[in-house]
Amino acid sequence: MTYQEAAAFLRRRDRYLILTHKRPDGDTVGCAAALCAGLRALGKEAHICPETGATHLFTPYLEGYLAPEGYVPDTVVSVDIAARGLFTQEGEKWLERGVDLAIDHHPSQEFFAKETCLDAGRGACGELVYDILKELGEITPAMAAPLYVAVSTDTGCFQYSNTTAGTHRIAAALMEAGIDTFALNKRHFRTKTWPRLQVERLIVERMHRYEGGKVAVAPISLELMAEAGATEEDMEDIAAFLGQIEGVETSVTIREKAEGGCKLSVRTSGSLSATQVCALLGGGGHAAAAGCSIRGSLEQAEEAILSAIRQVEGRQ
Amino acid sequence: MTYQEAAAFLRRRDRYLILTHKRPDGDTVGCAAALCAGLRALGKEAHICPETGATHLFTPYLEGYLAPEGYVPDTVVSVDIAARGLFTQEGEKWLERGVDLAIDHHPSQEFFAKETCLDAGRGACGELVYDILKELGEITPAMAAPLYVAVSTDTGCFQYSNTTAGTHRIAAALMEAGIDTFALNKRHFRTKTWPRLQVERLIVERMHRYEGGKVAVAPISLELMAEAGATEEDMEDIAAFLGQIEGVETSVTIREKAEGGCKLSVRTSGSLSATQVCALLGGGGHAAAAGCSIRGSLEQAEEAILSAIRQVEGRQ
Repeated sequence: MTYQEAAAFLRRRDRYLILTHKRPDGDTVGCAAALCAGLRALGKEAHICPETGATHLFTPYLEGYLAPEGYVPDTVVSVDIAARGLFTQEGEKWLERGVDLAIDHHPSQEFFAKETCLDAGRGACGELVYDILKELGEITPAMAAPLYVAVSTDTGCFQYSNTTAGTHRIAAALMEAGIDTFALNKRHFRTKTWPRLQVERLIVERMHRYEGGKVAVAPISLELMAEAGATEEDMEDIAAFLGQIEGVETSVTIREKAEGGCKLSVRTSGSLSATQVCALLGGGGHAAAAGCSIRGSLEQAEEAILSAIRQVEGRQ
Repeated sequence: MTYQEAAAFLRRRDRYLILTHKRPDGDTVGCAAALCAGLRALGKEAHICPETGATHLFTPYLEGYLAPEGYVPDTVVSVDIAARGLFTQEGEKWLERGVDLAIDHHPSQEFFAKETCLDAGRGACGELVYDILKELGEITPAMAAPLYVAVSTDTGCFQYSNTTAGTHRIAAALMEAGIDTFALNKRHFRTKTWPRLQVERLIVERMHRYEGGKVAVAPISLELMAEAGATEEDMEDIAAFLGQIEGVETSVTIREKAEGGCKLSVRTSGSLSATQVCALLGGGGHAAAAGCSIRGSLEQAEEAILSAIRQVEGRQ
């Protein structure tokens, strides 16, 4: 359905439960908080499904919105969830019962819900939720702040290729709703934890460069994590770290796993296909970002991925 | 004059020379390139005053626009220059002869020109130049790309507090003119040189934290610069590096100078006034960013600035 139809649907129903996706990011959390605020502004009862798994970066936006125990909704809405496999444990129960409306922007949307409002041309799901909320009434600061988080984080603060003129127009409208975007930007784009800074320092100290600097590999051992005092919360988007180095076209981040073996992330900005490289090792993903797992040590993983890169480059 | 009057002025005159400011940034270079392209699109003769001093990051935007030797203009226009002291050596000659029109967005504008088009409410001078060029005709990609560089770099890619709804609206319009903002963003916001990365690594390794992490000090010795293989081009905005650490409210970057002594940059995000701290050591600046020079070693400079911070905090 169109965003106007989704707005009409939301106006008709009541007693909402909103579902976010597993390992939640700013887009799913921001959409859920804004939608919850918007529905409440219409006089509806609305809550967000608890146990979202949100990290400390995003939990503040959920405050006051999580469903109380035993809450029984009439209408279940998912935001930014593309596939059945991306529901949280709590959310899966509602998936079985049936999702009434899915609001999403992923081309890979699986159409698991009774109704789907999909716009795959949007950089962030937050842009679509903005359109829906605008249709329903005035955008208040309580809606604008989480929507700004949704839109800015999913587009890398307007830097990724999914950013459109429409993205900037929505950012302008959200600013005019009276929110402090400077503080939000500082929180999400200009703040690093001390352990994160140590991780980056140790990566630079121990990384390897090949092919005149075009290929960069960062082995991240459990010992490096311990030395940095880092937890998973400090590692968000670490695979993008090497890609910023001038001249690097292919970057590989290798994480040693506690249970043995390694997890690899490959990012490419040149012509090399990251999917093809990872497919050789049983993994997959997109052309510019893919991943795979390897049994063995960090050294063995590095050797295997370099060999896969050379093979795809046609040198072997 | 208003931007409409500035547009009418530019339509009336011909044979332009455009002046940029000393140590040029993206805003002055982007404004100059866009204005030059816009004037040529009107059939005017227009060139940018050479010897801009632009680094490799910005020189590409000036290509084809620099004035040939012996060029004698009828009309001299300055962009993003607030004060007489900010003219380049070449530009100073024209300042003496007389600047016909100054286009600027600094509240500290000195009104050195015969006519001034000033809008101090704009985050970037590029926003004002956009309005003027829009008044003169269609915005082509040749104007839109440097304008995007001007607007995005001066607002920290829409993150600084000078960003307004109007900034985002102009970014939207520039994208619609058909430019590749992804490539521009990658170049200006997602690329670090290898020496820069080494500088950051060595800063993290050698910095000092005080008052439970609220105060951070980075001594940058000549030896650190040599070990990193860094030149001045690698050091742009290095004073902002410490400010991103979670919990840091006051950060100090101390550069050892080749000719002896140290140069200090103080940044604050809390209530402490950087100007007051630096004033105690004979320096000055703004409340959130100030600087001073100290005769002596890095250690002596660190001791002096910590003592000044404590004094302003009222602890001594």
